[in-house]
Amino acid sequence: MTEKQPAAATAVEMASRQREISVSEFFLKNRHLLGFDTPAKALLTAVKEAVDNSLDACEEAGILPEIRVQVSDRYGRSRVIVEDNGPGIVESQIARIFGKLLYGSKFHKLRQSRGQQGMGISAAGMYGQLTVGKPLHIVSRVAGDELASELFVSVDTARNRPDIHKKRRLPWDRPHGTRVEIELEGHPQKGPHSVETYLRLTAIANPHVAIDYSGPGGEAVRFARSTDALPPRPREIRPHPHGIELGRLIQMLSTTECRTLLDFLVDEFSSVGRKTALAIIGQTGTQLSERSYPKHIAHAQAAALHRSIRRTRVLAPRTDCIVPIGEERLLEGLRKELKADFYTAATRPAAAYRGNPFQVEVAIAYGGIGNADAERHPPATDGPDDGAENGAAELMGAKDEPVRLLRFANRVPLLYQQASCAITKAATQTNWRSYGLRQPKGALPVAPMAVLVHLASVWVPYTSESKEAIEPYPEILREIRLGLQQCARELAHHLHRELRLRREHGRRAFIEKYLPHIGVALQEILSLGDEERDSMVKRLDDVLRASRAPQETGS
Amino acid sequence: MTEKQPAAATAVEMASRQREISVSEFFLKNRHLLGFDTPAKALLTAVKEAVDNSLDACEEAGILPEIRVQVSDRYGRSRVIVEDNGPGIVESQIARIFGKLLYGSKFHKLRQSRGQQGMGISAAGMYGQLTVGKPLHIVSRVAGDELASELFVSVDTARNRPDIHKKRRLPWDRPHGTRVEIELEGHPQKGPHSVETYLRLTAIANPHVAIDYSGPGGEAVRFARSTDALPPRPREIRPHPHGIELGRLIQMLSTTECRTLLDFLVDEFSSVGRKTALAIIGQTGTQLSERSYPKHIAHAQAAALHRSIRRTRVLAPRTDCIVPIGEERLLEGLRKELKADFYTAATRPAAAYRGNPFQVEVAIAYGGIGNADAERHPPATDGPDDGAENGAAELMGAKDEPVRLLRFANRVPLLYQQASCAITKAATQTNWRSYGLRQPKGALPVAPMAVLVHLASVWVPYTSESKEAIEPYPEILREIRLGLQQCARELAHHLHRELRLRREHGRRAFIEKYLPHIGVALQEILSLGDEERDSMVKRLDDVLRASRAPQETGS
Repeated sequence: MTEKQPAAATAVEMASRQREISVSEFFLKNRHLLGFDTPAKALLTAVKEAVDNSLDACEEAGILPEIRVQVSDRYGRSRVIVEDNGPGIVESQIARIFGKLLYGSKFHKLRQSRGQQGMGISAAGMYGQLTVGKPLHIVSRVAGDELASELFVSVDTARNRPDIHKKRRLPWDRPHGTRVEIELEGHPQKGPHSVETYLRLTAIANPHVAIDYSGPGGEAVRFARSTDALPPRPREIRPHPHGIELGRLIQMLSTTECRTLLDFLVDEFSSVGRKTALAIIGQTGTQLSERSYPKHIAHAQAAALHRSIRRTRVLAPRTDCIVPIGEERLLEGLRKELKADFYTAATRPAAAYRGNPFQVEVAIAYGGIGNADAERHPPATDGPDDGAENGAAELMGAKDEPVRLLRFANRVPLLYQQASCAITKAATQTNWRSYGLRQPKGALPVAPMAVLVHLASVWVPYTSESKEAIEPYPEILREIRLGLQQCARELAHHLHRELRLRREHGRRAFIEKYLPHIGVALQEILSLGDEERDSMVKRLDDVLRASRAPQETGS
Repeated sequence: MTEKQPAAATAVEMASRQREISVSEFFLKNRHLLGFDTPAKALLTAVKEAVDNSLDACEEAGILPEIRVQVSDRYGRSRVIVEDNGPGIVESQIARIFGKLLYGSKFHKLRQSRGQQGMGISAAGMYGQLTVGKPLHIVSRVAGDELASELFVSVDTARNRPDIHKKRRLPWDRPHGTRVEIELEGHPQKGPHSVETYLRLTAIANPHVAIDYSGPGGEAVRFARSTDALPPRPREIRPHPHGIELGRLIQMLSTTECRTLLDFLVDEFSSVGRKTALAIIGQTGTQLSERSYPKHIAHAQAAALHRSIRRTRVLAPRTDCIVPIGEERLLEGLRKELKADFYTAATRPAAAYRGNPFQVEVAIAYGGIGNADAERHPPATDGPDDGAENGAAELMGAKDEPVRLLRFANRVPLLYQQASCAITKAATQTNWRSYGLRQPKGALPVAPMAVLVHLASVWVPYTSESKEAIEPYPEILREIRLGLQQCARELAHHLHRELRLRREHGRRAFIEKYLPHIGVALQEILSLGDEERDSMVKRLDDVLRASRAPQETGS
């Protein structure tokens, strides 16, 4: 502050400093927005982006995914390799897919997929390039091609376009697939933010996926698939009229190729048939008719059309653009990776926010590993005794800890930013006390329990580009709450049954202890022989047992 | 699900679907990332972006800012007008500044400013265009020009470039300045997320700014300036060598115009003189010399250079690139807008995260408005009795409520996403109990208190593009904690003093009550006349008063 401050600037000087900012530069400087703020998180994010891409590609091509993930580390310099048996990438696209931000096939589509913005894998490369200075190394082979393509690609950040350092064709033992190798400043974690936990959660939400993981400590884990059935491929849809803003409608009118308003409404929107379209047009109360030429519709008329669309009843959005995991598969996945006493799951019907269809699924695993009371509980009748590995323990809280939230969006586990996620908000807003759990004010309930919530949508509104938390839109919050309540009711039944069983067990112990004494007393009173006494005790026991039996059964 | 699912895709089909995504399209679809998720937030964000730009421009041009903000609303269609006395914008730049995302003068500079990414105002326009369908309306006049320029501009989202709907020159009564008008789907709020609260907080952090506000309910508020001194203009700096990643170093080596490594180190970095540069080069242990040609330095040599930079002691970053508000001004601002019993402020020394200088300031206002105990407290000796308006009440919590956090970054109030902000994290991590406050575990302390935290930096790492919360980098967390502790110590003294004063007050009342009785007793014992008795009582009182005086004073 002692030196003279810079001179004031004139408008002309200020104008001369205006510049275009490339999207790569922007995200390089703001790399925390993409999940690359610390070496620990960067490593996990890189794995996640590569695995997301592999799974999306396999499913789109109808291939059962078989993924190999390899992480090694030397003094904070990490190497990540993700290899899949997917369809491979046509050589001419490789450089742009891996070396350009905002380039992809999923952004302009209304259809559920893991990736949606075309940034993740290029951003991982950009981070590697920044911290270690090495480009991404990609090998990919398309089925039917004799050779694979190998490329070394980095992002030219000033221009947001790929720099190809080396390119050649080479033989590869895979018939088709893609392999990505990234070197980056990383810091492998253990516990809830580890690559292994992320892969375990991925296996839970994707029971059709097989993953082989080899970690930085030499550990090797195989997550086997529990089903050979690929999930149905989601269908692409057009936007729903109730989610369209006026400005968007004006833009659509000006760019459509339809020559009449009727065709425009029927062709460009989902859930609008001829009848609905005519109802909309009829309500505008302006000079609009079914034959109006879309490109000639003025602002005031468009505003009237927009109001009319809002007032008209339209069928709910189609839902085959989203593919929930399904209650059965969810339970299978949970049972495989997480040992508990009680499981329940609920898949809500599809709903929509801003015209975007979405669907919420909730599952609960209660009691078991990590629960100090585990031994005292009767073994659950619907739970297996094996299958859950040690690593699963951290997926469920202990008796005196808040429940663990397992958050998923489009089958991808969300590991950071729990505090700002719609799922957390809905879970804290739910009144768990009324279902028999402890719950501090404004907090998650306290119980040995994992609560899994999955949001499937054609467009997940993440709170940041790093896709770690879901924006709490009211419609989304509501559906999550309803799903949680549905599962909580089942849990309440279980807890009630468990409580009754425990009371029953107490009564039984009491009877068993005192029945012999009662026998002796009866023997005296009724002057019974020893045999008569024993038979009397036996009959008493039978009667008492039978009278309680109906309470014991019931799933 | 009943219809046939779409066919599986081949690699070639998948390649044909790859597209470039324009940054405008991206943010239009993800508009919550820029703060435009709900009409309520969108309205406030639009005001904020326009005011940020006005203040930045005025300060850069050395003009005392005089801002007029006008918000009106008709059935959810809001109009925002922000007008300033700034330097105006050269006509050729207007369209791009208001009609293109990622275009601006602040991104490539290391210097404190409110705006940094060149997105805010265009995004506000884009949202207006989407929801109401009208372009931004801009009037701007550069000093010396005879006429002002008027433009109607919208964003061509598919290409991220401006669409000019109308342009003309017209007379304007202002000699220089800019006026922006946005129509958008808005929902004016009352309370902590209102435009008025935002402006009040802006006035606190910017005591040199005058704002005239006229709100949607016809209300008019003038926030007068409390100083005529503009803050010093921050100086632009080069990056600090300790914040440079290897990849960035390699890039800088390849693009520099310096012809020797020595010149490169001295010219391209901040805090590196000839001596430090030679020390760095000397430590590389490779063939590098001061005369090495930067563009010819290979990867392994660059890595050695990078290691050597990390090992060499370098002066801390220059700090005249950042301009704190200053303790005195902070206290002035707080006193003007917020009535309390006790105020304290602390400006921490500058520090750095990833090589970016930053500085933390903390101020506390305790007791007073909103505090049920207010009447019982003695009036603070350093607090004024007037000036704070009614609206200020909500800036401070009540006795049984968590303290209010007033968060600021580069003098801009942050109103949303408190839960994910570094400031919140630091405030909950601080042990307030040891300073005499109540604090539930893992939560903010409970007290009638406002805690103001300001982070000034050449690059604020926001958690999202909407700039509502600060990423909790460890260095930033640490500085905020230290600042909070410094203020908390002062507060503890005050609370201790207050407690002592209250006890003293009790003792005094006791003495005043019994001194006359003692006088009568002494009169009897010593056979004093009435006058002698009164004089004795007076002397006793003086002595007692004097003996306690040192405890009472002390600032």
